[in-house]
Order: sequence, then structure tokens, then C-alpha cells
Amino acid sequence: MGTEISTLGEFGLIRHLTEGIELKNDSSKYGVGDDAAVLEYRDKEILVTTDLLIEGIHFDLTYVPMKHLGYKSAMVNFSDIYAMNGTPKQITVSIALSKRFSVEDLEEFYAGIKLACDLHQVDIIGGDTTSSLTGFAISITCIGEGEKGKVVYRNGARNTDLICVSGDLGAAYMGLQLLEREKAVFKGQDQAEVQPDFSGKEYLLERQLKPEARRDIVRKLAEEGIVPTAMMDVSDGLSSELLYICTQSNAGCRVYEEHIPIDYQTAVMAEEFNMNLTTCAMNGGEDYELLFTVPLTDHEKVSQIEGVQVIGHITKPELGCALISRDGQEFELKAQGWNPLKEEEKN
Amino acid sequence: MGTEISTLGEFGLIRHLTEGIELKNDSSKYGVGDDAAVLEYRDKEILVTTDLLIEGIHFDLTYVPMKHLGYKSAMVNFSDIYAMNGTPKQITVSIALSKRFSVEDLEEFYAGIKLACDLHQVDIIGGDTTSSLTGFAISITCIGEGEKGKVVYRNGARNTDLICVSGDLGAAYMGLQLLEREKAVFKGQDQAEVQPDFSGKEYLLERQLKPEARRDIVRKLAEEGIVPTAMMDVSDGLSSELLYICTQSNAGCRVYEEHIPIDYQTAVMAEEFNMNLTTCAMNGGEDYELLFTVPLTDHEKVSQIEGVQVIGHITKPELGCALISRDGQEFELKAQGWNPLKEEEKN
Repeated sequence: MGTEISTLGEFGLIRHLTEGIELKNDSSKYGVGDDAAVLEYRDKEILVTTDLLIEGIHFDLTYVPMKHLGYKSAMVNFSDIYAMNGTPKQITVSIALSKRFSVEDLEEFYAGIKLACDLHQVDIIGGDTTSSLTGFAISITCIGEGEKGKVVYRNGARNTDLICVSGDLGAAYMGLQLLEREKAVFKGQDQAEVQPDFSGKEYLLERQLKPEARRDIVRKLAEEGIVPTAMMDVSDGLSSELLYICTQSNAGCRVYEEHIPIDYQTAVMAEEFNMNLTTCAMNGGEDYELLFTVPLTDHEKVSQIEGVQVIGHITKPELGCALISRDGQEFELKAQGWNPLKEEEKN
Repeated sequence: MGTEISTLGEFGLIRHLTEGIELKNDSSKYGVGDDAAVLEYRDKEILVTTDLLIEGIHFDLTYVPMKHLGYKSAMVNFSDIYAMNGTPKQITVSIALSKRFSVEDLEEFYAGIKLACDLHQVDIIGGDTTSSLTGFAISITCIGEGEKGKVVYRNGARNTDLICVSGDLGAAYMGLQLLEREKAVFKGQDQAEVQPDFSGKEYLLERQLKPEARRDIVRKLAEEGIVPTAMMDVSDGLSSELLYICTQSNAGCRVYEEHIPIDYQTAVMAEEFNMNLTTCAMNGGEDYELLFTVPLTDHEKVSQIEGVQVIGHITKPELGCALISRDGQEFELKAQGWNPLKEEEKN
């Protein structure tokens, strides 16, 4: 069962989890251990994003290992900072947990957080640890820096801008479907005896359980001298995010089904599940890829960046937002992304 | 029952709750509505603090009105920033809630948050709204500014420094006892018929339900040209906080029972409950007063500040931390402050 958390107490636990943390960034002046952390950002824009993740709503511990949960919790916040064309620098990590969790569980969770932080050179500067009556809750706030004048909002897309997306879409959603199916199949069976066979589907699981924030894309854009006119990360689904950018930019858009980047494993899985592949890619969510728009004049430069696909263009607002199918038909875009407050109704 | 939250959806709800928010501070460049908020702090230290509050652990909605809960949630974070000798400027507000809450409940909660923010000139710059399977969870991150070189940590107390505390202690704890007693008395009875009589005890309830962060004290210290050598806010109890300052400053302390500031209502209530008054004042918690140390040379200046009481002095570390009772006996200080992770064991 592992070590009971009460043996350490709140402050003992925080000390245990945060000991050995060394601040890596110049902007981190003082971290864990006082009423507040102290930062210093000279001549930079400061970016702040926050996420609250609740067990049973955002994650299912029957198939998500604690280390992956920590890693993903940090990574999705980094993704929000990159989506502003910024660089994450600090996070605070607050958790609430019930008695069923052990010290070892939390060590795993923190190991995941720390791994993500090490990869992205982010400092853990504070947080809060407390109990809950049921389940596990995670609140992370991430602080980052942006160059003055180069922070990218959602509202800057202009008519004729190219719409680009990094990586591929729909795989994280397929990974979730796969995990949910195996959970249903194995319910009531002795899990030690029957292990699910995920061979050939590793990519889908990795996309769901271990997403990577696209720092590489932000860096490549900077190297090419491209400042996107609008950008956000794909967390709720491409359709939903495109509608955000278009609404906030007072614009319309056309995206082309044939250009939506989809991995081979995603396509195979959609067929196995008898699901519409394009729908999965458009509405799947949790891909944490970057969706951005660039001026038409950047076409050549952006086309050369590996891992970036031009999927359409921005139009005047009166043309609305539409997907053009392979046979040339127009389908109005609708946000069918994940809505945690509606989700609850179904359960 | 009020309006169901699902009628608005996540984004509709966030829009509804945050509409009409105007940014008041120059350092707030962009608030709610993008992947991250954008701030700019020129030539200031940036202070960051965060709190995660869980229903049933940190608050009991059977006697805490939603508006007070919002007010207090914001205020306790402001208090952490003042305790660094800083000024709160921005907060993010994340909440998770189950189906039993209505849109009107959240409007009340936000009204409390906004009231606290208006009083302290703080901007709401972001957050997250999601569902939970049970109860209500609140995560607030507060960002503030400090003057360079004037941020006050817990580790700067030096031998012979005076120990000072603002306001009075133990009243918030007494307010909690009072509310808990009434809750027990009225359990099972028709609450509409029998209303508890709190007359003469209003101050205790106010201290528990509507704490005020001590900006006034921070300002008075600045006016007098006093920079404390160490400071923190009293959230877990005076004993616990004194031990923090002494441990982190590698010092000891002597505090005098006769100098601990206690309100008349607190004393009356302790007698009614047959509790030791000094114990309540030393270990009560949730007072959100400021505990700080100043050099002996500031004695005259600090004594003139209304609402500040000198309660003792810092010693060499080998003398340990002790309370001197009215009859001259020494009692070693022990932290008996609130520990949410141990609290759980009792329940």
C-alpha cells in the first residue's frame, strides 16, 4: 500500500517533494518556502496561465500512471505559454488528495512534473498540498516570458492569412478511445492475468498519456523570422480552436480535409472503431499541437518547416467558417470539442 | 433551485462571470480570453502565491455564504502578498463544481471575489471553470509587486529584533467554534424556525467569515520608513508562524503572554467554551494578521503605529522559542496550527 501521507504531515510532505529543487532560470529569485515566490522579469512580457484538473473529469487513474499524470499536467500548461509565442519559466503545483494515495504515489507524480520541467527548463517555485474528501485534484499555474511586441494572441488573424498546424491530429483522442475500450473489456477480470495488447498502437497511447508541448515549432518559427498573426494550442479540438481564432479575429476560414495531418495509426484505429476519421481529427482534442496563422507572404518560409502543414486560409468574416471535403463540398465548422461542464450531464 | 450551469456551458459560464471586468493596473496588459494572460512589471519584483481550497476541508457551505467564500478566498491570497511587503495586483480564479451549484451560486461567489478585488485594486486576469464529481474546489493564484530590495522574507530576523503583530488574535478561531456549535445544535431541526442568536458575537463571526488582509499595516510601515527584517501572515496560528520565522532565521524568541493582543469578545467566548484563552490566541489560525520583526532601533517608530503590538523579541538560536506566562514561567512553543493532512485522520 505504500507509506501513509499522514506520517509526513503537510509541511513534511511539501519538504519531501520539493527538496533538491534548484532554480534554473535567472527570472526565478526565490522559490518554495515563503508566503510567496519572487520573480524578476526585465524587459519581457510576463505570461500567466492556469489549469485545474479533477480526477474522474479530466483523468482516470485506472489507466493513467501517476508519473504520466504529473508529466502531462505540467506539459499542457507549457503548451499554453508556447501558444502565446512565449517560453515557460516557472510553475506552481497545488494538489489535493484523499487518504487512498501514498507518499510513493506522490513521488511518482512529482517525478513526472520534474521530468517535464527539466526538459523545458522550468522551475517549480511553489504550490499547496492539502487533503480532499474524495479523489485527486491538481492546480497548476505556469508563468513564462514573451519578447515585447512578439506575443501572439488569438485575435490577429487577417483575411488571406494561411492557417497552419503542427504535427498530426486525432491521435490523442484515439488513444483515449483505446484506453476506455480496454478498461471496459477488463472490468471485472483479473488484470494481472490478462494484459491488453497495444502493439502497433503505441503512438496513440503516447499521444494521450505523454503529450509534448511544441517548443520546437516556436523556435523554428523564430529562426525563420516568422511571427504568427494568431496562435493557440489544440486542446479542445481543431474545429473549436479555429472558431475561437476566427471569432476573436472577426474573420472566416476555409480548411481543406485533404490537408489535415493524420497519422497512419490514427487512421487504422478509426476504421477499427468504425468512426469518421476527419471528425476525429477535427474534434478530438488533447493533441496539444499549435494552430497558427501567418501572412500569405510567409508561405514559402512556413512550408519549409518540418512538422508544419498549411491546412487552409483565413477569409472575410461574412464567408463563415467551413471545412472543404475531398469532393469539394463545404461543411460549416461547429465546435464539438470537449466541454467538462456538459460532460457531467452524461455521467 | 436557480439556473442550471449546463444551460451556459463552460465557456458561456466563464464569459458570464467575467464580463464587465476592466483591468485597473498598468501591469495588467491582457486578461481573460487567450491561452495566457499578459503582464508587464518594470523594475519591480514579482510575487506569486497560490492556494487550493477544498469543500469539507477548508470551508463548510452549511454556514459559509458563497459571497463570503469568494471574498475570503481572494483575501487570504492578498494577505500572502502583503506578508512579503508587497502589493497584490492580479489573480487567477479556478473553480471546480458539482451539479448541485447553480449559476446564481457562482454569481454570488464571484461577487465576493470582485468586492475583495475592488477594495484592493486587484485585476482578475484568468482562470479555469470545470466540473467536479463532488463538492466545490477553488484554486487562486495571486501575483503582486514588491519594491526591489524591500521584499521581506521569513528568514531575516536577527537577535534582539522586536516581534510585532497587527490587530488581535484568536477571534477567527472562536468564530469557527461558534459556527460549528450552532451547526451541531441546529442539525436535524428546521433551520427556518430557529435562528441562532449571534448578538454580541458579531466580531468573531466577521473575523472567521470576512477576514481583511492588512494592507493598512504595510502602508503604515512604509510611511514610517520601516522595512521589517522578517514577516509572514498568521494563517496557521501564532506559535506555528513564530517557529517558522525562528527556524528559517536560525534564531530563538521570547514572547510575552501579557502582550498578546486579544479582543474582549474572544475572551468572553473562550470562557463560555471553557477553553484556555492564550492557547486559542497562540494556535487559533486564520487571523490573517501580520507577524513581523523589526530592529530594536525601530522601537519608538513601531510603537506609534496604531494596531501594532510588540509581543516579544528575537534571541540567539540556542535559547529556543518560548512563551513567557503572566507569572513568569517559560513554555516551549509548539506548532499546533492547522494541518489539513492530519485533520483528515480525525474525520
